[in-house]
Amino acid sequence: MILNNKMRPEKLKRLSKKQLRQLCNEIRNFLIGTVSKTGGHLASNLGMVELTVALHRVFESPRDKFVFDVGHQSYTHKILTGRFERFSELRSEGGISGFPRPGESEHDAFIGGHSGISVSAALGIAEALRLSEPQSQPPKVIAVAGDGAFTDGGIYEGMNNAGKSSANLLVILNDNGMSISKNTGAFAAYLSQLRSSLRYHKAKVSVKSFLGKNKVGEAVSGAVSATKKLVKNAVYYQNLQGNFFENLGFKYYGIVDGHNINELIEVLEVAKLINEPCLIHVKTMKGKGFRPAEKNSGEFHGITPTLANNLPLKPNHSESYSDVFGKEIAALGESDERIVLISAAMKYATGCNYFNDKFPERFYDCGIAEAHAVTFASGLASRKMLPVFAVYSTFSQRGFDRFLHDCAIENLHVVFAIDRAGVVGEDGETHQGVFDVAMFSLIPNFTVFSPANSSELKECLRRALYEVDGPVAVRYPRGQANNSDLNVCDKFQLTKTGSKRLTVTYGRIAEKLSGLNTDFLRLVQIKPLPPEAISSAMNYSDIIFYEEGSERGGIGEALLLELVRRGWKGEYDVKAVTEFVPCADVETQLRKITAL
Amino acid sequence: MILNNKMRPEKLKRLSKKQLRQLCNEIRNFLIGTVSKTGGHLASNLGMVELTVALHRVFESPRDKFVFDVGHQSYTHKILTGRFERFSELRSEGGISGFPRPGESEHDAFIGGHSGISVSAALGIAEALRLSEPQSQPPKVIAVAGDGAFTDGGIYEGMNNAGKSSANLLVILNDNGMSISKNTGAFAAYLSQLRSSLRYHKAKVSVKSFLGKNKVGEAVSGAVSATKKLVKNAVYYQNLQGNFFENLGFKYYGIVDGHNINELIEVLEVAKLINEPCLIHVKTMKGKGFRPAEKNSGEFHGITPTLANNLPLKPNHSESYSDVFGKEIAALGESDERIVLISAAMKYATGCNYFNDKFPERFYDCGIAEAHAVTFASGLASRKMLPVFAVYSTFSQRGFDRFLHDCAIENLHVVFAIDRAGVVGEDGETHQGVFDVAMFSLIPNFTVFSPANSSELKECLRRALYEVDGPVAVRYPRGQANNSDLNVCDKFQLTKTGSKRLTVTYGRIAEKLSGLNTDFLRLVQIKPLPPEAISSAMNYSDIIFYEEGSERGGIGEALLLELVRRGWKGEYDVKAVTEFVPCADVETQLRKITAL
Repeated sequence: MILNNKMRPEKLKRLSKKQLRQLCNEIRNFLIGTVSKTGGHLASNLGMVELTVALHRVFESPRDKFVFDVGHQSYTHKILTGRFERFSELRSEGGISGFPRPGESEHDAFIGGHSGISVSAALGIAEALRLSEPQSQPPKVIAVAGDGAFTDGGIYEGMNNAGKSSANLLVILNDNGMSISKNTGAFAAYLSQLRSSLRYHKAKVSVKSFLGKNKVGEAVSGAVSATKKLVKNAVYYQNLQGNFFENLGFKYYGIVDGHNINELIEVLEVAKLINEPCLIHVKTMKGKGFRPAEKNSGEFHGITPTLANNLPLKPNHSESYSDVFGKEIAALGESDERIVLISAAMKYATGCNYFNDKFPERFYDCGIAEAHAVTFASGLASRKMLPVFAVYSTFSQRGFDRFLHDCAIENLHVVFAIDRAGVVGEDGETHQGVFDVAMFSLIPNFTVFSPANSSELKECLRRALYEVDGPVAVRYPRGQANNSDLNVCDKFQLTKTGSKRLTVTYGRIAEKLSGLNTDFLRLVQIKPLPPEAISSAMNYSDIIFYEEGSERGGIGEALLLELVRRGWKGEYDVKAVTEFVPCADVETQLRKITAL
Repeated sequence: MILNNKMRPEKLKRLSKKQLRQLCNEIRNFLIGTVSKTGGHLASNLGMVELTVALHRVFESPRDKFVFDVGHQSYTHKILTGRFERFSELRSEGGISGFPRPGESEHDAFIGGHSGISVSAALGIAEALRLSEPQSQPPKVIAVAGDGAFTDGGIYEGMNNAGKSSANLLVILNDNGMSISKNTGAFAAYLSQLRSSLRYHKAKVSVKSFLGKNKVGEAVSGAVSATKKLVKNAVYYQNLQGNFFENLGFKYYGIVDGHNINELIEVLEVAKLINEPCLIHVKTMKGKGFRPAEKNSGEFHGITPTLANNLPLKPNHSESYSDVFGKEIAALGESDERIVLISAAMKYATGCNYFNDKFPERFYDCGIAEAHAVTFASGLASRKMLPVFAVYSTFSQRGFDRFLHDCAIENLHVVFAIDRAGVVGEDGETHQGVFDVAMFSLIPNFTVFSPANSSELKECLRRALYEVDGPVAVRYPRGQANNSDLNVCDKFQLTKTGSKRLTVTYGRIAEKLSGLNTDFLRLVQIKPLPPEAISSAMNYSDIIFYEEGSERGGIGEALLLELVRRGWKGEYDVKAVTEFVPCADVETQLRKITAL
C-alpha cells in the first residue's frame, strides 16, 4: 500500500508515474470502501482522483491555494493532506467535514458548500497575496469547478472580474457533462460541442510523440526544460479565437483526459509557468472505476450511511418528503395544465422526476441557477401560469433578492416548495435549512406554510396553489416522510390538557414535542400568523416556543410581539437556532436546539 | 408638435421616417425639460430615444412584451404608451414610477428596479405564452438590457437557459460602454473589441445600398418583401463562430447604430421574422443630445429635483453620507495598507472615488456583481486583508447567501458599508433600504452598526475595522449628511427625562424622535444588542420602538424577546415597516412609518 496516513503532497512528488497510478487505484478503492460506510458524495469524488493527485504533484499546497467548487469533490484532496486516518469520521459529529473547511486544514483555502463561488474567492485570495506579499513568483490560486458550477451566474461574475486581472489564477473546469442531474442549458451544449470538435489529447498525443513527430519538436528534443515546456504549451494550448473562456480573458487549455495522470501532470506544468488567468478543460467521468456509479451517477451523487451499509450499493427507495411532494405535484399537474415545475439541478433530489415523467413540456431544469429560477417562475406567474419551484432551503438563500424584488413586490403567485427545511444532519453548517423561515417572513406579501407530516404537506401544497394569492413557501424537511397521528389541519391546531403552560411550535418537531405535559399550539400557516392562533395563546401566562430554525427573525419573536401588542403579559421563551449548526446526526442537532 | 398625450404605438406606426426623427427630437427635448424638474435618470434615457421609438414602430405592445433591464431606461417607453401627460408626476407620491410597473400599464410586462433579471423574466413570459396560448406566430418577448447588466451573473443564467430554448425571445444589448460608472471586466473588454472589429452599419450600409452593390441584391431587388428581409438578414447577421452570444445559443445581429432610426427599424424587422432567441447589439451614447450629460453621463445618471431645478444642470456637490464614508475610508487607507475597497458599479454614488483617487491599486469595481463582490471580499479577508465593500442596502439583498455562506460561517472579517439604508424616497418599492437590518441580523456572527450622524458614521467605521471580529455591517442613509447635536457614542445612549415611558430607536430617525417627551434609548450597535442597553430598558414598563426598517426580523422584536426572557412585563409596541414602501418623498415615508 502506498496510501497511508503519512501520505502528503511532498511525498507524492517523489513517487514514480507507475506508483502514482497505483496510488490512484488505492484511493479509488478506499473511497468506495469508506463512503459506503460514512455516506457522502461518491460519484463526483471517484471522478476527481487522478486530477487531484496530479494537482498535488505539480503544485505546492498550502503555498499554492486550492478552492473547490463545490467542495464535495474534495475527498481525495483531504486524503492526501493529512486526513486519511480520520476519514472514517467523515461527516460525523466532531469529525472531518464533507466540504473544505479552512479551520480543518491549512490545505483548504476556502469554504465550499454552495456552488459558483470559487473563482470570486480565488481572485480575492490571489489579490490579497499580491498586495500583502509581493513575490517574483506568486503562489498559484487554483479553483476547481465542475461544469455544473458553470450554470451558475456566480462563476460568470468571477470569470468576468478575474479575466481582466493579472492574477496568478488557474481555473480547472472539471467537465463530466453532469452536475447532479444531467446538465442542461446553452453552455452545456457549448461544452459538448467543444468536446466533440477539439483535438482531444490521448496518451498518444503526448509531448513525447509531439516532439518525435514535429519539425519544431525535433529541433528542440534535446533542449532545456523550459523549451520543452514551451512545446508542451503548443500541444495543449489551442489558440481559439472566440472560445468562450478566451472571450472572458482566460487562456484556454484543453481538452485533457482527466483520468490520464501523465497528461494531467504535463498540462498542469504548463499552466504553472503562466502567471495570468488560465483555464484547463478536463474531461472526467463521474463515478469512474465503480460500475454502478458510472452507470447512474445521479443516484450515487450523495449517498446516506444507511444506504451505504446496505451493500451491494443501491439507491435508497424509501419514501422521502421529496417523493411525497413530487408525486403530489405530478398528480395535481394532471388536472391543472397551468402548473409548471422548476428545479435548479435537483430533479431527482427534490422529486421533480415524477412530474417530469408525465409532463416533460412543463418541467424546467435551470441548472444551478436559483436566482434565474425565481425570476423565470415570476415571469410565468405574470402570465397566469401556476409555477412551482422546488429548491432546498439552503439554496433558496441564493434567490433572496429575486423573491423580494421580482416576485413579492408585484405579489406574483409563485409556489416555492422548500425542501430540506430544518436541520439536515451530516452536511453541516453550509447546508442547514434553518434560515428560510426568517428569510421568507421578512418579505411582505409572502405566505409560509410548515406542515408536520406528509398528509399535511399535500394539503398545504393544495392550499398554496388554490387558496392563497401572491408568493407562497411550503417548507418540509429532509429525509423519510412521516405520516404521524397528528391531524391534518388548516392553519393551526390547539390541544388542551388543562395545563397553564403552552408549548408552541411548527413543522416536523411538533410530533416530538406533542408529548410534553402542556397545552400545545401547533402552527401550520406560520406567516401571516392566524389571528385565532394568537388569540388562543393570549390565555396562557407561560409560553415556550420551539423553532427548528433561526431565533432571529423567527416566528417565536413574531408571536411574542403580537401577544404583547394585545396587552399580554407573562413568561415567554424561545428555543431555536442561534448559531451555525455543525455536522451531527439530525437527532443530535434537534436535541441541541430544543434543549430537551 | 407630434408628441402629445395621444401618442401611442399604433399612431407611431403611421408616421413617416422624417416624422419619426422629429418625434425623437421632441422626446429628447421633453426629457431634458421634464427630468430637470422631476429628477430621475436622464443620461440613460437620452440614449434610448431612437431605440424605443423603433421598437414600438416594429413590434406590437402590449401583444409583444417589453422587459427593461434595468428599468430606469424606460422613460421613452412610458411617454409612448399613454403616460406622457402624467410625466410631470414622475417619481412623486401617487404618480408614475421611475421604473416599469405592470400595475401602472399593460405595456410594462415586468418590474425592473434591480439589474440582470430581464432575460429570465422574458423567458418565463415567453414560455407562459407558448404553453397557455399556442399561436402560429407567437408574441415576441423583448428584453432590453444595458451592457452594465451583462456584468451581472443573473443575465448569464438567463441567457444560458434561454439560449437552449425555442422561445420567441429578443434581447437588445443597449451598449453604451458604461453602466453607471465606466464598465470594467473582461466582458466589457470583449464588447469593446467587438465594437472595433465588427462591421459597423452606418446609414450607407443600408439595405438599399446593399441591394445596389451586391449581385444577390441586384437579383432580388424587385422581389417580394420576404426576400427583401432575407437580404436585410444578410446585412445584419454576422455568422460569427465563437461569438460570445452565439456560444450561448443566440443568433447575433450587430453592431447597429442606436441613434439611426432607419437602421434600427430594419434590423428589428429582421429579428421579427426569427422565432428563436436572438440578440441585437446596439451601440448608443449615454446622454445623447444633451452636451453636459454626454460629457459626464456618470454625474447625470440619477439627478435629484433640487439639482434639476438649479439650472443650468450641475451635479450636486453638498456632502452626503456617501461622501463622509468615502473620505473617511480614504483617510483610513492612508495609515493601513491592508484596507481594500470594493464597489459594485457604484464608484461615485458610494463615495469610493476618494479612495480610488489615492489608492487605485487597492480599489476594485466589480461591475453589477454584488454576489461576486461579497465572495471576493471574503477571499481577501481569508488572507488577512481588510476588505470594505460599499453597497446600497437594496442591492446588498443580492448577496444574502454570500454573506451567510462565504463570509459568516468562517467568521471572516469583512466590513460592509451599507449605503442608502432606510427609506430612499422617489425610487419607490424596488430601492428602499428597509430589509438590511433584518437580513444581517439573522446571520450568526454578524455585527451591525447604525450610526445617527456623520461623526458617528466615522466612529462606527473605525470600530468595525479595528474592534470587531467577523463580518460587520455599518449602515447609513441616503442623502445629505447630518452632523446633529447627538453625542457620538459607542454602543448606545440613554437620555433620561424622568418619564416612565421609553422610546427606543437607532439610526437617522433618532434625531427626529429625540424631542418626544419620554426617556430615550438610542442604539448604535444594533446587533448583538448591548446587554447594558437591555438592562436599561428593563426599568420601563412602557416601551415604544421606532424602526426605519422591516418590523419582521427587526431589532424591535429582538429587544422584546430579550426583555421578556429576563422577566420584564409591560406595554411594548413597534412602529416599523410592514409592507413595501411606495414612492414619496423621504419625509412622507418616515411619517408613515413612525405614525408621528
